[in-house]
Order: sequence, then structure tokens, then C-alpha cells
Amino acid sequence: MLVVALDPPVREKGRRKTSLLVEELDKYVSGYKIGLPFLIKHGRRGIRELRKSTEKPIIVDLKLADIGDVMAEVLRHLARLGVDAVIAHAFTGYTGALEDLSKASMATGVGLIIVVSMSHRGSEEYIDRHVDEFLELAARIRAKGVVAPATRPRVIRHVREVLGDTVEIYSPGIGIQGAEPGSALCAGANYEIVGRLITRSGNPGETARAIREMQLERWLKCRG
Amino acid sequence: MLVVALDPPVREKGRRKTSLLVEELDKYVSGYKIGLPFLIKHGRRGIRELRKSTEKPIIVDLKLADIGDVMAEVLRHLARLGVDAVIAHAFTGYTGALEDLSKASMATGVGLIIVVSMSHRGSEEYIDRHVDEFLELAARIRAKGVVAPATRPRVIRHVREVLGDTVEIYSPGIGIQGAEPGSALCAGANYEIVGRLITRSGNPGETARAIREMQLERWLKCRG
Repeated sequence: MLVVALDPPVREKGRRKTSLLVEELDKYVSGYKIGLPFLIKHGRRGIRELRKSTEKPIIVDLKLADIGDVMAEVLRHLARLGVDAVIAHAFTGYTGALEDLSKASMATGVGLIIVVSMSHRGSEEYIDRHVDEFLELAARIRAKGVVAPATRPRVIRHVREVLGDTVEIYSPGIGIQGAEPGSALCAGANYEIVGRLITRSGNPGETARAIREMQLERWLKCRG
Repeated sequence: MLVVALDPPVREKGRRKTSLLVEELDKYVSGYKIGLPFLIKHGRRGIRELRKSTEKPIIVDLKLADIGDVMAEVLRHLARLGVDAVIAHAFTGYTGALEDLSKASMATGVGLIIVVSMSHRGSEEYIDRHVDEFLELAARIRAKGVVAPATRPRVIRHVREVLGDTVEIYSPGIGIQGAEPGSALCAGANYEIVGRLITRSGNPGETARAIREMQLERWLKCRG
């Protein structure tokens, strides 16, 4: 139920090596998410090393939003590095975009997770006006999951109502961005994504353990 | 008027080295565009090497579409590698997204180019329904340029009408994707972006020269 976003600030030096961080975190988490800052800093070699240091799922969050050819090419390459899923935007549409990406996803077995809403306020300007269309699209391409932010629990509940248990819901926005651990799970998410709260902690393993406990406690309360 | 997209197929081996390709192309082109396939294959070292091999503008096209913090972080890192501009989507909105990216752009001098329409058919599903809002947004954040596809000249003409000469227009979609060299310039674009037609040619320098000639010829005709 806890996915850790491992992205480092690109300029920061002397941080824990990713493999050491993963060693501390591995027993508390369901998987890892890495994005552009990780890719720029560590390159594909960094992804390979992360793959060697854990058997938990690795989700690559480049928020793909390009034409189909380019996205499929990127996905096929990530497949060879052993990643488990990629995150793509819905707003580039089906024809010539997610259509091609989903074919590459099925051919390689790399899962596709689709952004249907984001955690920042600007998500309401355009993205959130299309949530229902994006959910139809997610169903059409048989997405493994969707991203819906913990900062907007109403959207999470809506996703769960519309798509039932056919997709996993991943929720960023816990911690620094304002939502409390467990709150997205209570709204219907499967996974809460936590980044800096854990990776910038003096004791990441202990922080991850404590967040899991908070998640469980809140979840048990809202279910009961 | 000609920008070359240098992205290599990630898996292809034994291609010309980027620096050799650039040496052949440099006198015919206005700049270079690189994206995720380039970044995955060559890493930040590849960007540094490209920077060393040309004084022409380097545009990094990651089609940024993340929360503001992440996009600003990526832009600041690319600034240190000497890139001249980045391409971002308009879709993520202003507040907490392009707002932060444009501040980082002004602070670093790295230009911001905003996607207002794309070359694939799926662009009509969501993106193209917001073109006018995206143009307002581009003006608001003082974007250096916008991306509008050669495959949709009507959109290019519309951008030019609405924003006048306050922005540069970059047009992908020439060549493999169907539009003819010069056609986007005639509709009002400043730059046509050409990729595979040049990079997969047996003689990239000669192909670039020939495309420039086709651009000029068509442009002179449509202006006359």
C-alpha cells in the first residue's frame, strides 16, 4: 500500500546511494517510483542498479505525453531494463498515442498506469474537466492502473465507483503536498505514493515503517 | 528555419555518433531537438557532448507535464548542461505547474516552448479543444515559442493570428509524418522540425541541404 518515489533533487550531492536506501525501505514498501530527475541523474544504468537491488515493482513515471511512436519506443526500452510499469498521461488521446503505447505494453508485459488527475491546483484548469473521458480511455486500453491524487479524495472515490476493481489506483500527494497517510486508501486508492517525506528523512526505513503504521491505523478506522 | 530532431531509436546500434552527425548538419540547420529516446540512450553526458559539438540552439523536448516542482527541477538541471530551451505541455495548467516552470525559465534564461497542438490524430480528442486557452496561457507565461504541427496548418495560422510575432512557432510533422517541407513555414511557422527523414538518410548533410532548398522554394512561392 506504500510506494516510495525515489527521485533525488538533481543537484544534491552526497545522498545515500539508491541501493542503500532501497535496502532500508524494501521490507516496508510495495514498490518504487522513479521519474525524470532520477533518469537525468542516474541514467539507464541507475535503473539497472535499482532493478538489481529489489524484487519489488519499479514504476517509471516520465508522465509520457508524446506521439505513440515515441512513447512505445521509450516503453520498449524500459522493458529491457526490467521495469514493471510506466505512467502516461491520458490527454494525448487514443489515436496515434495511447493506442500505440498500450500495444507496446501488451507486447512487453510492462503495465500501463494512466494519469486521470494530478495533485497540483492547476489540474483543475484542464485535466480535471476530462476525468470521465480519461476513465473511459483507461478502460478501453485496459490500463493496469490510474493515478489520482490524495489531495483530491473525491476524484479517487469517483474513479473507484466508475471503474470498480478493474484498475489499481495510485495516489501521490501524501506528506509534503498535504494529504495524510491513509487518507487516499480510505477514499479507495490501492497505493499511496510518498517521496520526500521518506527519502529526505534522517532514517528512511523508520519513517517508512511509521507511515505504514499510520496508513493501517487510518484505514482500519475508516473501514470499521 | 530547419530544426533537426536527433532522437535515435533506442535499440539501434552502430549509428553515426551524434557529434559526427552534427558536424555534417551544422551549416544547414537552425538548431537541434532531443527528447526522451536521446536522454535514455545517451544520458546527461550525451547532452554535454552535443553542447560541445555545436553552438546552435539545443531544445530539449521531454514534453514536460508534471507538477511545477518537478518540472522546475528538471529545467534547472538542463540549464546547467547548457541547453537553450525546453518543451512543456500546456495541459497541466498554470497554478502549481507552468507558473513554477516559467519562473525557473526566467531565472535561468532557458526558453520555454509550449505544446498547443500535436501532430497525431489523437490531438483532436482533448488537446485541440483547448488551443485558445493554451495560447492565452503561453502569452501569460511569456513563452518563447509554441509547438503546432505541420500536419494541421490551420492551427499554425490561428496561432500566428492570435499571438502575432510575440512567439516563435515550431512545427513537427514534416517528412515521415506526412507534411511537406515548407508547408508549415507558409502557414506561419518559424521552424520546421525534421527527424528521421534526415537522421536515417544515408547522407544526412545532403538531405538537410535538399530539405532547406525545398523549404525555401515553397516559402518563396507562397509569399509571392
